[in-house]
Amino acid sequence: MADTPKFPEVQGGGSLIIAWQIKDKKVLVVGGGEVAAGRIFHCLNADAKVTVVSPTARLNPEVAYRVAQKQVEHIDRNFEPSDLDGADMVLVAVDDPAASTAIWKLCKERRIPANIADVPPECDFYFGSVHRDGPLQIMVSTNGKGPRLASMIRKFIARQLPPDAGRAIETIGQLRVKLRQIAPQPEDGPKRMAWMTKVSDSYSWDEMCDLSEEDMSNLLRFYASGKVPALDVLKTMRSNPDIDLDVFDGSFGFSVGS
Amino acid sequence: MADTPKFPEVQGGGSLIIAWQIKDKKVLVVGGGEVAAGRIFHCLNADAKVTVVSPTARLNPEVAYRVAQKQVEHIDRNFEPSDLDGADMVLVAVDDPAASTAIWKLCKERRIPANIADVPPECDFYFGSVHRDGPLQIMVSTNGKGPRLASMIRKFIARQLPPDAGRAIETIGQLRVKLRQIAPQPEDGPKRMAWMTKVSDSYSWDEMCDLSEEDMSNLLRFYASGKVPALDVLKTMRSNPDIDLDVFDGSFGFSVGS
Repeated sequence: MADTPKFPEVQGGGSLIIAWQIKDKKVLVVGGGEVAAGRIFHCLNADAKVTVVSPTARLNPEVAYRVAQKQVEHIDRNFEPSDLDGADMVLVAVDDPAASTAIWKLCKERRIPANIADVPPECDFYFGSVHRDGPLQIMVSTNGKGPRLASMIRKFIARQLPPDAGRAIETIGQLRVKLRQIAPQPEDGPKRMAWMTKVSDSYSWDEMCDLSEEDMSNLLRFYASGKVPALDVLKTMRSNPDIDLDVFDGSFGFSVGS
Repeated sequence: MADTPKFPEVQGGGSLIIAWQIKDKKVLVVGGGEVAAGRIFHCLNADAKVTVVSPTARLNPEVAYRVAQKQVEHIDRNFEPSDLDGADMVLVAVDDPAASTAIWKLCKERRIPANIADVPPECDFYFGSVHRDGPLQIMVSTNGKGPRLASMIRKFIARQLPPDAGRAIETIGQLRVKLRQIAPQPEDGPKRMAWMTKVSDSYSWDEMCDLSEEDMSNLLRFYASGKVPALDVLKTMRSNPDIDLDVFDGSFGFSVGS
Protein backbone atom coordinates (compact mmCIF):
# COMPACT_ATOMS: atom_id res chain seq x y z
CA MET A 1 0.00 0.00 0.00
CA ALA A 2 1.35 3.41 -0.94
CA ASP A 3 2.08 5.91 1.80
CA THR A 4 -0.63 8.50 2.29
CA PRO A 5 1.00 11.91 2.00
CA LYS A 6 1.07 13.72 5.33
CA PHE A 7 0.87 17.16 3.74
CA PRO A 8 -2.24 19.32 3.68
CA GLU A 9 -4.42 18.64 0.68
CA VAL A 10 -5.04 21.44 -1.82
CA GLN A 11 -8.72 22.50 -1.97
CA GLY A 12 -8.55 25.18 -4.68
CA GLY A 13 -11.30 27.69 -5.33
CA GLY A 14 -10.15 30.20 -2.72
CA SER A 15 -8.43 33.56 -2.80
CA LEU A 16 -5.00 34.51 -1.52
CA ILE A 17 -5.93 36.59 1.50
CA ILE A 18 -3.22 39.11 2.25
CA ALA A 19 -2.64 42.21 4.36
CA TRP A 20 -1.70 44.83 1.78
CA GLN A 21 0.64 47.57 3.02
CA ILE A 22 -0.60 50.97 1.86
CA LYS A 23 0.85 53.24 4.54
CA ASP A 24 1.74 56.51 2.77
CA LYS A 25 0.86 54.96 -0.61
CA LYS A 26 -1.37 56.83 -3.02
CA VAL A 27 -4.76 55.22 -3.43
CA LEU A 28 -7.06 56.67 -6.06
CA VAL A 29 -10.78 56.23 -5.39
CA VAL A 30 -13.00 56.95 -8.40
CA GLY A 31 -16.53 57.73 -7.26
CA GLY A 32 -17.99 59.24 -4.11
CA GLY A 33 -21.01 57.11 -3.22
CA GLU A 34 -21.69 54.62 -0.44
CA VAL A 35 -19.36 51.92 -1.79
CA ALA A 36 -16.58 54.50 -2.23
CA ALA A 37 -17.14 55.62 1.39
CA GLY A 38 -16.48 52.08 2.64
CA ARG A 39 -13.34 51.73 0.51
CA ILE A 40 -12.03 55.10 1.71
CA PHE A 41 -12.56 54.15 5.35
CA HIS A 42 -10.62 50.89 4.94
CA CYS A 43 -7.76 52.71 3.20
CA LEU A 44 -7.55 55.45 5.85
CA ASN A 45 -7.48 52.76 8.55
CA ALA A 46 -4.39 51.42 6.79
CA ASP A 47 -2.77 54.91 6.64
CA ALA A 48 -3.01 55.38 2.88
CA LYS A 49 -2.97 58.77 1.16
CA VAL A 50 -6.36 58.75 -0.46
CA THR A 51 -7.44 60.86 -3.43
CA VAL A 52 -11.12 60.87 -4.37
CA VAL A 53 -12.16 61.82 -7.91
CA SER A 54 -15.84 62.72 -8.12
CA PRO A 55 -17.95 65.78 -8.78
CA THR A 56 -18.84 67.36 -5.42
CA ALA A 57 -22.54 67.05 -6.21
CA ARG A 58 -22.21 63.25 -6.15
CA LEU A 59 -20.36 62.88 -2.84
CA ASN A 60 -22.37 61.05 -0.21
CA PRO A 61 -22.42 62.57 3.32
CA GLU A 62 -19.61 60.36 4.64
CA VAL A 63 -17.28 61.07 1.73
CA ALA A 64 -18.12 64.80 1.92
CA TYR A 65 -17.26 64.65 5.64
CA ARG A 66 -13.86 63.02 4.96
CA VAL A 67 -13.16 65.70 2.33
CA ALA A 68 -14.19 68.53 4.69
CA GLN A 69 -11.99 67.05 7.45
CA LYS A 70 -9.10 66.91 4.96
CA GLN A 71 -8.75 63.18 5.61
CA VAL A 72 -8.66 62.71 1.83
CA GLU A 73 -7.71 64.81 -1.19
CA HIS A 74 -10.56 65.64 -3.49
CA ILE A 75 -10.62 66.25 -7.23
CA ASP A 76 -13.97 67.83 -8.09
CA ARG A 77 -14.69 66.37 -11.55
CA ASN A 78 -15.01 63.06 -13.38
CA PHE A 79 -12.05 60.74 -13.83
CA GLU A 80 -9.27 61.62 -16.27
CA PRO A 81 -6.41 59.24 -17.20
CA SER A 82 -3.79 61.57 -15.70
CA ASP A 83 -5.33 60.84 -12.29
CA LEU A 84 -3.53 57.50 -12.44
CA ASP A 85 -0.08 59.16 -12.38
CA GLY A 86 1.69 58.01 -9.24
CA ALA A 87 -1.22 55.88 -8.04
CA ASP A 88 -0.25 52.69 -6.19
CA MET A 89 -3.78 51.30 -6.12
CA VAL A 90 -7.06 52.21 -7.81
CA LEU A 91 -10.57 51.55 -6.48
CA VAL A 92 -13.48 52.32 -8.81
CA ALA A 93 -17.07 52.58 -7.57
CA VAL A 94 -19.14 54.39 -10.17
CA ASP A 95 -22.40 53.37 -11.87
CA ASP A 96 -20.88 53.50 -15.35
CA PRO A 97 -19.76 50.11 -16.72
CA ALA A 98 -18.09 51.60 -19.82
CA ALA A 99 -16.06 54.14 -17.84
CA SER A 100 -15.18 51.45 -15.27
CA THR A 101 -13.88 49.09 -17.93
CA ALA A 102 -11.83 51.87 -19.53
CA ILE A 103 -10.21 52.67 -16.16
CA TRP A 104 -9.54 48.96 -15.51
CA LYS A 105 -7.73 48.66 -18.86
CA LEU A 106 -5.59 51.72 -18.15
CA CYS A 107 -4.67 50.28 -14.74
CA LYS A 108 -3.63 46.98 -16.29
CA GLU A 109 -1.48 48.78 -18.90
CA ARG A 110 0.25 50.59 -16.06
CA ARG A 111 0.34 47.53 -13.78
CA ILE A 112 -1.58 49.27 -11.00
CA PRO A 113 -3.56 46.91 -8.72
CA ALA A 114 -7.25 47.75 -9.11
CA ASN A 115 -10.74 46.82 -7.97
CA ILE A 116 -13.81 47.71 -10.00
CA ALA A 117 -16.74 47.35 -7.60
CA ASP A 118 -19.32 44.73 -8.58
CA VAL A 119 -17.35 43.60 -11.67
CA PRO A 120 -15.45 40.49 -10.49
CA PRO A 121 -13.56 39.94 -13.78
CA GLU A 122 -12.19 43.49 -13.45
CA CYS A 123 -10.69 43.01 -10.01
CA ASP A 124 -7.16 42.09 -8.95
CA PHE A 125 -8.63 41.61 -5.49
CA TYR A 126 -11.91 41.56 -3.62
CA PHE A 127 -12.85 43.08 -0.31
CA GLY A 128 -14.38 41.15 2.57
CA SER A 129 -15.92 42.01 5.90
CA VAL A 130 -13.28 43.14 8.41
CA HIS A 131 -13.30 43.16 12.21
CA ARG A 132 -10.79 45.55 13.73
CA ASP A 133 -9.57 45.78 17.32
CA GLY A 134 -6.29 47.70 17.54
CA PRO A 135 -3.55 45.59 15.95
CA LEU A 136 -5.98 42.70 15.39
CA GLN A 137 -7.71 42.46 12.03
CA ILE A 138 -9.96 39.59 11.04
CA MET A 139 -11.26 39.40 7.50
CA VAL A 140 -14.13 37.19 6.43
CA SER A 141 -14.52 36.29 2.77
CA THR A 142 -17.14 34.00 1.28
CA ASN A 143 -15.40 34.22 -2.11
CA GLY A 144 -18.40 35.98 -3.56
CA LYS A 145 -20.99 33.41 -2.39
CA GLY A 146 -22.70 35.73 0.09
CA PRO A 147 -21.44 39.19 1.03
CA ARG A 148 -24.22 39.56 3.57
CA LEU A 149 -23.29 36.26 5.17
CA ALA A 150 -19.68 37.46 5.42
CA SER A 151 -20.86 40.41 7.47
CA MET A 152 -23.02 38.13 9.69
CA ILE A 153 -20.06 35.82 10.30
CA ARG A 154 -17.79 38.77 11.06
CA LYS A 155 -20.21 40.01 13.71
CA PHE A 156 -20.57 36.49 15.10
CA ILE A 157 -16.78 36.22 15.45
CA ALA A 158 -16.54 39.66 17.08
CA ARG A 159 -19.01 38.50 19.76
CA GLN A 160 -16.93 35.38 20.51
CA LEU A 161 -13.59 37.16 20.95
CA PRO A 162 -12.37 38.09 24.43
CA PRO A 163 -13.10 41.80 24.94
CA ASP A 164 -9.41 42.56 25.46
CA ALA A 165 -8.04 40.66 22.46
CA GLY A 166 -6.59 43.75 20.80
CA ARG A 167 -4.89 44.90 23.97
CA ALA A 168 -3.39 41.48 24.67
CA ILE A 169 -1.81 41.52 21.21
CA GLU A 170 -0.48 45.02 21.84
CA THR A 171 1.08 43.79 25.10
CA ILE A 172 2.85 40.92 23.33
CA GLY A 173 3.98 43.32 20.61
CA GLN A 174 5.55 45.63 23.19
CA LEU A 175 7.31 42.70 24.81
CA ARG A 176 8.77 41.77 21.42
CA VAL A 177 10.07 45.33 20.90
CA LYS A 178 11.64 45.48 24.38
CA LEU A 179 13.19 42.07 23.90
CA ARG A 180 14.82 43.26 20.68
CA GLN A 181 16.28 46.19 22.67
CA ILE A 182 17.95 43.94 25.24
CA ALA A 183 19.02 41.31 22.65
CA PRO A 184 19.56 43.35 19.51
CA GLN A 185 22.05 41.19 17.58
CA PRO A 186 20.93 39.21 14.50
CA GLU A 187 22.56 36.14 16.05
CA ASP A 188 20.18 36.53 19.03
CA GLY A 189 17.29 35.90 16.62
CA PRO A 190 16.71 32.17 17.18
CA LYS A 191 16.89 32.46 21.01
CA ARG A 192 14.57 35.51 20.91
CA MET A 193 12.05 33.69 18.73
CA ALA A 194 12.17 30.53 20.85
CA TRP A 195 11.63 32.52 24.06
CA MET A 196 8.74 34.54 22.60
CA THR A 197 7.11 31.30 21.47
CA LYS A 198 7.48 29.96 25.02
CA VAL A 199 5.85 33.15 26.35
CA SER A 200 2.93 32.86 23.91
CA ASP A 201 2.42 29.25 24.95
CA SER A 202 2.71 29.89 28.70
CA TYR A 203 -0.14 32.31 29.25
CA SER A 204 -3.75 32.37 28.19
CA TRP A 205 -5.23 35.46 26.58
CA ASP A 206 -6.89 36.49 29.78
CA GLU A 207 -3.58 36.26 31.60
CA MET A 208 -1.84 38.29 28.91
CA CYS A 209 -4.46 41.00 29.20
CA ASP A 210 -3.64 41.21 32.91
CA LEU A 211 0.07 41.83 32.35
CA SER A 212 1.16 45.36 33.24
CA GLU A 213 4.21 47.30 32.02
CA GLU A 214 5.91 46.31 35.28
CA ASP A 215 5.11 42.64 34.69
CA MET A 216 6.67 42.83 31.25
CA SER A 217 9.87 44.35 32.60
CA ASN A 218 9.97 41.57 35.18
CA LEU A 219 9.27 38.96 32.52
CA LEU A 220 12.20 40.22 30.44
CA ARG A 221 14.54 39.54 33.38
CA PHE A 222 14.01 35.83 32.71
CA TYR A 223 15.10 36.01 29.07
CA ALA A 224 18.80 35.44 29.82
CA SER A 225 17.96 32.12 31.47
CA GLY A 226 15.68 31.14 28.56
CA LYS A 227 12.91 30.43 31.10
CA VAL A 228 9.37 31.77 31.29
CA PRO A 229 7.92 32.19 34.80
CA ALA A 230 4.43 31.14 35.85
CA LEU A 231 1.95 33.96 36.32
CA ASP A 232 2.17 33.55 40.10
CA VAL A 233 5.88 34.31 39.94
CA LEU A 234 5.21 37.57 38.09
CA LYS A 235 2.57 38.49 40.66
CA THR A 236 5.02 37.86 43.50
CA MET A 237 7.56 40.10 41.80
CA ARG A 238 5.08 42.98 41.76
CA SER A 239 5.54 43.59 45.47
CA ASN A 240 9.21 42.58 45.45
CA PRO A 241 10.93 44.67 42.81
CA ASP A 242 14.45 43.77 43.97
CA ILE A 243 13.86 40.05 44.35
CA ASP A 244 16.64 37.70 43.22
CA LEU A 245 15.49 35.48 40.35
CA ASP A 246 17.34 32.54 41.92
CA VAL A 247 14.53 32.15 44.43
CA PHE A 248 12.33 30.98 41.58
CA ASP A 249 14.68 28.13 40.66
CA GLY A 250 13.58 24.51 40.82
CA SER A 251 11.05 24.69 37.97
CA PHE A 252 9.95 28.01 39.41
CA GLY A 253 8.49 26.63 42.61
CA PHE A 254 8.38 29.76 44.76
CA SER A 255 10.39 29.90 47.99
CA VAL A 256 10.42 32.80 50.45
CA GLY A 257 14.09 32.38 51.38
CA SER A 258 17.29 34.07 50.02
CA MET B 1 -22.13 72.48 20.61
CA ALA B 2 -20.87 71.11 17.33
CA ASP B 3 -22.50 68.01 15.92
CA THR B 4 -20.58 64.82 16.59
CA PRO B 5 -19.94 63.15 13.25
CA LYS B 6 -21.92 59.94 12.87
CA PHE B 7 -19.31 58.34 10.64
CA PRO B 8 -16.89 55.63 11.78
CA GLU B 9 -13.69 57.09 13.19
CA VAL B 10 -10.39 56.31 11.47
CA GLN B 11 -8.00 54.28 13.66
CA GLY B 12 -5.00 54.00 11.34
CA GLY B 13 -2.17 51.53 11.89
CA GLY B 14 -3.85 48.64 10.09
CA SER B 15 -3.40 46.91 6.77
CA LEU B 16 -5.79 46.74 3.84
CA ILE B 17 -6.89 43.13 4.01
CA ILE B 18 -7.91 41.87 0.60
CA ALA B 19 -8.69 38.63 -1.19
CA TRP B 20 -6.18 38.61 -4.04
CA GLN B 21 -7.32 36.77 -7.18
CA ILE B 22 -4.53 34.55 -8.48
CA LYS B 23 -6.51 31.88 -10.32
CA ASP B 24 -4.37 30.91 -13.34
CA LYS B 25 -1.87 33.67 -12.52
CA LYS B 26 1.84 32.92 -12.44
CA VAL B 27 3.27 33.05 -8.93
CA LEU B 28 7.02 32.68 -8.60
CA VAL B 29 8.23 31.24 -5.29
CA VAL B 30 11.96 31.66 -4.67
CA GLY B 31 13.16 29.10 -2.13
CA GLY B 32 12.02 25.63 -1.17
CA GLY B 33 12.07 25.52 2.64
CA GLU B 34 9.32 25.43 5.25
CA VAL B 35 8.19 29.03 4.71
CA ALA B 36 8.07 28.47 0.94
CA ALA B 37 5.97 25.33 1.53
CA GLY B 38 3.35 27.40 3.38
CA ARG B 39 3.28 30.05 0.66
CA ILE B 40 2.93 27.42 -2.07
CA PHE B 41 0.02 25.76 -0.26
CA HIS B 42 -1.85 29.08 0.06
CA CYS B 43 -1.28 29.85 -3.64
CA LEU B 44 -2.43 26.41 -4.81
CA ASN B 45 -5.57 26.78 -2.67
CA ALA B 46 -6.26 29.93 -4.69
CA ASP B 47 -5.68 28.11 -8.01
CA ALA B 48 -2.46 29.89 -8.97
CA LYS B 49 0.11 28.48 -11.36
CA VAL B 50 3.10 28.17 -9.09
CA THR B 51 6.73 27.99 -10.16
CA VAL B 52 9.34 27.17 -7.52
CA VAL B 53 12.96 28.17 -8.07
CA SER B 54 15.34 26.28 -5.80
CA PRO B 55 18.06 23.66 -6.10
CA THR B 56 16.48 20.24 -5.57
CA ALA B 57 18.86 19.55 -2.68
CA ARG B 58 17.24 22.39 -0.70
CA LEU B 59 13.58 21.39 -1.18
CA ASN B 60 11.88 20.39 2.05
CA PRO B 61 9.73 17.22 2.00
CA GLU B 62 6.45 19.10 1.41
CA VAL B 63 7.80 21.15 -1.49
CA ALA B 64 9.46 18.07 -2.96
CA TYR B 65 6.08 16.31 -2.71
CA ARG B 66 4.28 19.14 -4.55
CA VAL B 67 6.96 19.01 -7.27
CA ALA B 68 6.69 15.22 -7.57
CA GLN B 69 2.89 15.48 -7.79
CA LYS B 70 3.31 18.11 -10.52
CA GLN B 71 1.23 20.54 -8.46
CA VAL B 72 3.96 23.13 -9.12
CA GLU B 73 6.59 23.74 -11.77
CA HIS B 74 10.15 23.44 -10.55
CA ILE B 75 13.31 25.17 -11.72
CA ASP B 76 16.27 23.29 -10.24
CA ARG B 77 18.77 26.10 -9.60
CA ASN B 78 19.14 29.42 -7.82
CA PHE B 79 17.12 32.48 -8.87
CA GLU B 80 17.91 34.30 -12.10
CA PRO B 81 16.32 37.62 -13.13
CA SER B 82 14.68 36.05 -16.20
CA ASP B 83 12.55 33.98 -13.79
CA LEU B 84 10.51 37.16 -13.28
CA ASP B 85 9.34 37.20 -16.91
CA GLY B 86 5.58 36.87 -16.90
CA ALA B 87 5.32 36.61 -13.11
CA ASP B 88 2.20 38.18 -11.59
CA MET B 89 3.41 37.82 -8.00
CA VAL B 90 6.73 36.93 -6.36
CA LEU B 91 7.23 35.31 -2.96
CA VAL B 92 10.79 35.04 -1.67
CA ALA B 93 11.76 32.79 1.24
CA VAL B 94 15.51 32.23 1.20
CA ASP B 95 18.09 32.76 3.94
CA ASP B 96 20.07 35.26 1.91
CA PRO B 97 19.32 38.93 2.72
CA ALA B 98 21.44 40.31 -0.16
CA ALA B 99 19.80 38.08 -2.77
CA SER B 100 16.37 38.83 -1.30
CA THR B 101 16.90 42.57 -1.53
CA ALA B 102 18.13 42.28 -5.11
CA ILE B 103 14.98 40.33 -6.09
CA TRP B 104 12.78 42.87 -4.28
CA LYS B 105 14.34 45.72 -6.27
CA LEU B 106 13.83 43.89 -9.56
CA CYS B 107 10.19 43.28 -8.66
CA LYS B 108 9.66 46.96 -7.89
CA GLU B 109 11.25 47.99 -11.21
CA ARG B 110 8.84 45.64 -12.98
CA ARG B 111 5.89 46.54 -10.72
CA ILE B 112 5.34 42.95 -9.62
CA PRO B 113 3.70 42.58 -6.19
CA ALA B 114 6.19 40.85 -3.90
CA ASN B 115 6.71 39.54 -0.39
CA ILE B 116 10.18 38.94 1.03
CA ALA B 117 9.66 36.69 4.05
CA ASP B 118 10.77 38.21 7.38
CA VAL B 119 11.75 41.56 5.80
CA PRO B 120 8.71 43.82 6.40
CA PRO B 121 10.11 46.85 4.51
CA GLU B 122 10.49 44.61 1.45
CA CYS B 123 6.86 43.50 1.35
CA ASP B 124 3.92 44.85 -0.61
CA PHE B 125 1.79 42.62 1.58
CA TYR B 126 1.97 40.33 4.59
CA PHE B 127 0.45 36.95 5.18
CA GLY B 128 -1.74 36.08 8.14
CA SER B 129 -3.21 32.94 9.57
CA VAL B 130 -6.08 31.62 7.44
CA HIS B 131 -9.02 29.36 8.31
CA ARG B 132 -10.57 27.66 5.31
CA ASP B 133 -13.90 25.86 5.06
CA GLY B 134 -15.05 25.57 1.45
CA PRO B 135 -15.98 29.04 0.18
CA LEU B 136 -15.39 30.54 3.63
CA GLN B 137 -11.98 32.05 4.34
CA ILE B 138 -11.15 33.86 7.55
CA MET B 139 -7.81 35.60 7.85
CA VAL B 140 -6.34 36.74 11.14
CA SER B 141 -3.62 39.40 11.14
CA THR B 142 -1.98 40.94 14.19
CA ASN B 143 -0.17 43.42 11.92
CA GLY B 144 3.17 41.90 12.88
CA LYS B 145 2.63 42.10 16.65
CA GLY B 146 2.44 38.35 17.18
CA PRO B 147 2.34 35.79 14.37
CA ARG B 148 1.94 32.98 16.88
CA LEU B 149 -1.01 34.75 18.48
CA ALA B 150 -2.61 35.09 15.05
CA SER B 151 -2.48 31.33 14.69
CA MET B 152 -3.94 30.86 18.23
CA ILE B 153 -6.79 33.25 17.43
CA ARG B 154 -7.46 31.53 14.10
CA LYS B 155 -7.78 28.17 15.87
CA PHE B 156 -10.01 29.76 18.52
CA ILE B 157 -12.33 31.14 15.83
CA ALA B 158 -12.42 27.81 14.00
CA ARG B 159 -13.66 26.13 17.21
CA GLN B 160 -16.47 28.71 17.60
CA LEU B 161 -17.84 28.43 14.08
CA PRO B 162 -20.83 26.16 13.38
CA PRO B 163 -19.46 22.92 11.92
CA ASP B 164 -21.44 23.43 8.71
CA ALA B 165 -20.54 27.08 8.08
CA GLY B 166 -18.84 26.39 4.75
CA ARG B 167 -21.73 24.29 3.49
CA ALA B 168 -24.32 26.90 4.51
CA ILE B 169 -22.45 29.48 2.45
CA GLU B 170 -22.32 27.09 -0.48
CA THR B 171 -26.09 26.62 -0.20
CA ILE B 172 -26.71 30.37 -0.29
CA GLY B 173 -24.30 30.68 -3.22
CA GLN B 174 -26.23 28.08 -5.19
CA LEU B 175 -29.48 29.84 -4.41
CA ARG B 176 -27.99 33.05 -5.81
CA VAL B 177 -26.95 31.28 -9.03
CA LYS B 178 -30.36 29.68 -9.50
CA LEU B 179 -32.07 32.98 -8.82
CA ARG B 180 -30.00 34.60 -11.55
CA GLN B 181 -31.20 31.87 -13.92
CA ILE B 182 -34.88 32.57 -13.26
CA ALA B 183 -34.43 36.38 -13.17
CA PRO B 184 -31.53 37.00 -15.54
CA GLN B 185 -32.15 40.60 -16.63
CA PRO B 186 -29.94 43.43 -15.34
CA GLU B 187 -33.11 45.31 -14.43
CA ASP B 188 -34.03 42.39 -12.11
CA GLY B 189 -30.90 43.22 -10.06
CA PRO B 190 -32.44 45.35 -7.30
CA LYS B 191 -35.35 42.93 -6.69
CA ARG B 192 -32.94 39.96 -6.72
CA MET B 193 -30.64 41.63 -4.22
CA ALA B 194 -33.51 42.70 -1.94
CA TRP B 195 -34.96 39.17 -1.94
CA MET B 196 -31.56 37.54 -1.25
CA THR B 197 -31.06 39.93 1.65
CA LYS B 198 -34.48 38.93 3.01
CA VAL B 199 -33.48 35.25 2.70
CA SER B 200 -30.19 35.85 4.54
CA ASP B 201 -32.06 37.64 7.31
CA SER B 202 -34.88 35.07 7.58
CA TYR B 203 -32.91 31.96 8.51
CA SER B 204 -30.20 31.23 11.03
CA TRP B 205 -27.04 29.43 9.95
CA ASP B 206 -28.30 26.19 11.40
CA GLU B 207 -31.48 26.49 9.42
CA MET B 208 -29.56 27.26 6.23
CA CYS B 209 -27.42 24.18 6.74
CA ASP B 210 -30.62 22.12 6.86
CA LEU B 211 -31.87 23.36 3.49
CA SER B 212 -31.79 20.69 0.79
CA GLU B 213 -31.71 21.13 -2.99
CA GLU B 214 -35.47 20.52 -2.95
CA ASP B 215 -35.97 23.23 -0.31
CA MET B 216 -34.08 25.69 -2.47
CA SER B 217 -36.21 24.94 -5.49
CA ASN B 218 -39.29 25.46 -3.33
CA LEU B 219 -37.83 28.64 -1.88
CA LEU B 220 -37.31 30.04 -5.38
CA ARG B 221 -41.02 29.63 -6.10
CA PHE B 222 -41.63 32.51 -3.67
CA TYR B 223 -39.30 34.93 -5.49
CA ALA B 224 -42.02 36.25 -7.84
CA SER B 225 -44.08 37.36 -4.82
CA GLY B 226 -41.02 38.95 -3.18
CA LYS B 227 -41.80 36.95 -0.04
CA VAL B 228 -39.62 34.59 1.97
CA PRO B 229 -41.40 31.68 3.68
CA ALA B 230 -40.78 30.53 7.24
CA LEU B 231 -38.80 27.32 7.60
CA ASP B 232 -41.97 25.46 8.59
CA VAL B 233 -43.49 26.37 5.24
CA LEU B 234 -40.51 24.87 3.40
CA LYS B 235 -40.77 21.74 5.51
CA THR B 236 -44.47 21.40 4.67
CA MET B 237 -43.66 21.72 1.00
CA ARG B 238 -41.26 18.78 1.22
CA SER B 239 -44.12 16.30 1.42
CA ASN B 240 -46.42 18.33 -0.84
CA PRO B 241 -44.50 19.03 -4.03
CA ASP B 242 -47.57 20.24 -5.94
CA ILE B 243 -48.93 22.49 -3.22
CA ASP B 244 -50.37 25.86 -4.26
CA LEU B 245 -48.40 28.75 -2.75
CA ASP B 246 -51.65 30.60 -2.09
CA VAL B 247 -52.24 28.35 0.92
CA PHE B 248 -49.35 30.13 2.63
CA ASP B 249 -50.92 33.56 2.27
CA GLY B 250 -51.85 35.68 5.26
CA SER B 251 -48.29 36.35 6.41
CA PHE B 252 -47.59 32.71 5.68
CA GLY B 253 -49.83 31.29 8.39
CA PHE B 254 -50.27 27.73 7.15
CA SER B 255 -53.71 26.44 6.25
CA VAL B 256 -54.49 22.90 5.11
CA GLY B 257 -57.29 23.93 2.72
CA SER B 258 -57.26 24.39 -1.10
